[in-house]
Amino acid sequence: MFELKIRADVLREVVELTSCIVEEIKLSIKKEGLYVRAVDPSHVAMIEMKLSKNAFEEYKATDQDIGMDLGKLRDLLKLVRPEEMVSWRSDEKKNKIILEIGNLRRSMSPVDLGGMTDPKVPDLTLPGKVTVDINEIRKGIRAAESISDHIAFLMTQADFKMEAEGDTEKMELVLTKENGITEITSPGTLRSLYPLDYLTTMFKAINAPTVTIHLANDYPTRIEFQVAGGAGEGAFLLAPRIENV
Amino acid sequence: MFELKIRADVLREVVELTSCIVEEIKLSIKKEGLYVRAVDPSHVAMIEMKLSKNAFEEYKATDQDIGMDLGKLRDLLKLVRPEEMVSWRSDEKKNKIILEIGNLRRSMSPVDLGGMTDPKVPDLTLPGKVTVDINEIRKGIRAAESISDHIAFLMTQADFKMEAEGDTEKMELVLTKENGITEITSPGTLRSLYPLDYLTTMFKAINAPTVTIHLANDYPTRIEFQVAGGAGEGAFLLAPRIENV
Amino acid sequence: MFELKIRADVLREVVELTSCIVEEIKLSIKKEGLYVRAVDPSHVAMIEMKLSKNAFEEYKATDQDIGMDLGKLRDLLKLVRPEEMVSWRSDEKKNKIILEIGNLRRSMSPVDLGGMTDPKVPDLTLPGKVTVDINEIRKGIRAAESISDHIAFLMTQADFKMEAEGDTEKMELVLTKENGITEITSPGTLRSLYPLDYLTTMFKAINAPTVTIHLANDYPTRIEFQVAGGAGEGAFLLAPRIENV
Repeated sequence: MFELKIRADVLREVVELTSCIVEEIKLSIKKEGLYVRAVDPSHVAMIEMKLSKNAFEEYKATDQDIGMDLGKLRDLLKLVRPEEMVSWRSDEKKNKIILEIGNLRRSMSPVDLGGMTDPKVPDLTLPGKVTVDINEIRKGIRAAESISDHIAFLMTQADFKMEAEGDTEKMELVLTKENGITEITSPGTLRSLYPLDYLTTMFKAINAPTVTIHLANDYPTRIEFQVAGGAGEGAFLLAPRIENV
Repeated sequence: MFELKIRADVLREVVELTSCIVEEIKLSIKKEGLYVRAVDPSHVAMIEMKLSKNAFEEYKATDQDIGMDLGKLRDLLKLVRPEEMVSWRSDEKKNKIILEIGNLRRSMSPVDLGGMTDPKVPDLTLPGKVTVDINEIRKGIRAAESISDHIAFLMTQADFKMEAEGDTEKMELVLTKENGITEITSPGTLRSLYPLDYLTTMFKAINAPTVTIHLANDYPTRIEFQVAGGAGEGAFLLAPRIENV
Repeated sequence: MFELKIRADVLREVVELTSCIVEEIKLSIKKEGLYVRAVDPSHVAMIEMKLSKNAFEEYKATDQDIGMDLGKLRDLLKLVRPEEMVSWRSDEKKNKIILEIGNLRRSMSPVDLGGMTDPKVPDLTLPGKVTVDINEIRKGIRAAESISDHIAFLMTQADFKMEAEGDTEKMELVLTKENGITEITSPGTLRSLYPLDYLTTMFKAINAPTVTIHLANDYPTRIEFQVAGGAGEGAFLLAPRIENV
């Protein structure tokens, strides 16, 4: 059983973030909040997210897992103003999920959990860590898009750099504590290359002023961010592209 | 002979409404105003409209029918601000229609009336009648679009309901006097199913705060609305889809 | 060697104007400013432009020609706010062009000048000349677009007219000193027909309140305009379409 009430814009944020990774998602509804963990079909990216029950206007739930079709949720949220309240509950007798927004009511079958794997979040040792203005990262990603399919993240003790290279051109965005960086820790120089298409989608979905990027050499990155204005937290994991040396 | 002057936004409203049904239209210009009646090529929908001469800034006309290409009018109106005045007249010697907006002048041949039928508006007995906020109807239509190609209109003595059903999901919008309904009369429960694509187009074109929907069981609906802020009135007729029982 | 600093919106204006004609351009950087002259691949249109060094915030240059890929510049400018400053210089050792906007740095190879011709601007005798509100010309162009691929420019001693004709329709925009014309000189009636697609693109790119159009009978037109709010000047030349008589 669950009976939740949540602002439309918060639900939309959850839907946008998880849609970066999968089209159908397993939500773990627990007494203290909502948990999500999913890996994308090509096993390049993962999302991990907790949404405290404080992110909801009303929250009554017994522990359970439920499968949701994110596209159907997104369609519904298009009809609604950001500040409208969405009531979201299960009708266990009919095996339906009910969503109500004002006088509009939509019911849908939960997605079968059988086909959904429960990915193990790998235990990564990432010695570099930078907290940085999200708009600077977005600028770097967009500047790289017309040049390459990949972007390099580089970190030293003093700066965080994004780099992309094409056949005859190159871009570089250098961030320091003067512009964009709040905090940085690195044992030395670190560098990894990541696919741009994933980063583009992820940084469109993240709705927080800063992100914390964890980095190592030629290794996955972990990008942490707040969800729902601080009532939740999320992280994307993204596999590197290993360059041929 | 006719010599009319009309605000661009009023003419645009007439063009948008009639474009829901046909691409070329026969306008009946009478001494007291403009009359339109047209049926769509697949005979699923009809429009009936009167625009009093009060909707015009200037109105001089002898009784006549004239064929207009709505796409050409729409192209012209894209160039103009809503409050600009369109002068619209016939040049009978050259068999042309002249449209002038400020210093811009466009002439076009009238469309041959030979191919245009003069549809008879069927005399429908529709016992249910509801006057309702147009934005609520629009919301119901949009909510149904991702689920089905059809939407059901249901009426009781107390409420008006819109319903659509997909394979595993369902939507329902219930309107009462508390939300959206101004007036409702029904002999009991009525229900008919209508094609969504027509309704989507029609409700985009209607420019009035409320509509009055007339309903019966598995029967056409008649949707009445004001045109030009009350200087005219229109109605769409839409055939039901009869469900196999 | 060159080392320039220019507002992003001024650079964008230059890029938009030259992109009407070519995708890769030869810029002649001189001590007193920037010069451009290019002909489009089908030899229908030309651009000629000078941008005084006053259009730049900083300007240090020795005389030289350099080839730029306009698409790459346009991509970069999408990332930037209009008022941001672009630093633009050559790195001669590495044979690169460097563009820097704040902390973002992009380098690219110059385009090989070998394939670029240096078009001779024809010496045209155009007896008619009208200075006219650019928005009136834009309105005429848009009104013609749904009717024809060509538009006629006509000039008398008193007015400037734009005309287009389709199979069954016609448009006409008449400009006089009452509406749109600042100055007009013509020896009599002049008329030439021009391709609309070129004009549409050109008049989207021009960023000046008025243009001066030079005209003759069945002959190229020369359209002059200010660039960078007066710190530069440009002209498009456009070949006529000669009608079969």
